[in-house]
Amino acid sequence: MLKLKILSIGKSKEKWLEEALREYTKRLKPYMTIEWLWAKDNAQLIEWAQKEPLFICLDPAGCLFTSEQFAVFLEQLWEKNRSRLTIVIGGPEGLPPILIQRAQLISLSPLTFTHQMTRLILIEQIYRALEINRGSSYHK
Amino acid sequence: MLKLKILSIGKSKEKWLEEALREYTKRLKPYMTIEWLWAKDNAQLIEWAQKEPLFICLDPAGCLFTSEQFAVFLEQLWEKNRSRLTIVIGGPEGLPPILIQRAQLISLSPLTFTHQMTRLILIEQIYRALEINRGSSYHK
Repeated sequence: MLKLKILSIGKSKEKWLEEALREYTKRLKPYMTIEWLWAKDNAQLIEWAQKEPLFICLDPAGCLFTSEQFAVFLEQLWEKNRSRLTIVIGGPEGLPPILIQRAQLISLSPLTFTHQMTRLILIEQIYRALEINRGSSYHK
Repeated sequence: MLKLKILSIGKSKEKWLEEALREYTKRLKPYMTIEWLWAKDNAQLIEWAQKEPLFICLDPAGCLFTSEQFAVFLEQLWEKNRSRLTIVIGGPEGLPPILIQRAQLISLSPLTFTHQMTRLILIEQIYRALEINRGSSYHK
């Protein structure tokens, strides 16, 4: 079973987003456990991230992927790190500079998204990546 | 008042998405009228698109933008086309080839999104673009 931890700042107050995240968490349940952790500020986010053996960060300036490339990238990370992975999403001000310097940065798009929407796009892409790796027809 | 028409295939059945689209349509109301048109198939989508004086299409292989570049791009299109703009989103199979050949293609990301999620990301970026052009602090 894969393990995914997502660290971000501030829980969403938008109902539709909570519902969407619940939907994808449910779909992913047969393949992985997802832990959503909400830091109260940047200091806590940095503290949590640095305790992780391997984490990657989302940033608009990071490496861009197609969904197929992202699927390969995730699979390799999970293999390298004994099925565990931590992804850090910055708050409304973006990522703290210390995390930008220390982590591999990946990007969902050169566009800037709200950090709430980033959660949704990320989780849908992770679901898509698993379906691509399983060879299902979801991604087509 | 700006006018935006969004042509796509198949109405969403997901409640959270409908709620999110309503939320952004409401936020955009002071600046523009948005018309969402749901074609029943590719033939109808092509027919509707070709009636428009100017339309652009979303495609993962299209031109990528930062949110700031997208704001400039939209402003110029609206100026050129007397405050009107039509954007076409393909269905689950992507855009019909004839539209790919005839229209300017723009991309929200090299990643593939569900066509439903594409609507949400697009509308949030349009809202962000207007806020950037107005000089508000939303996009920061």
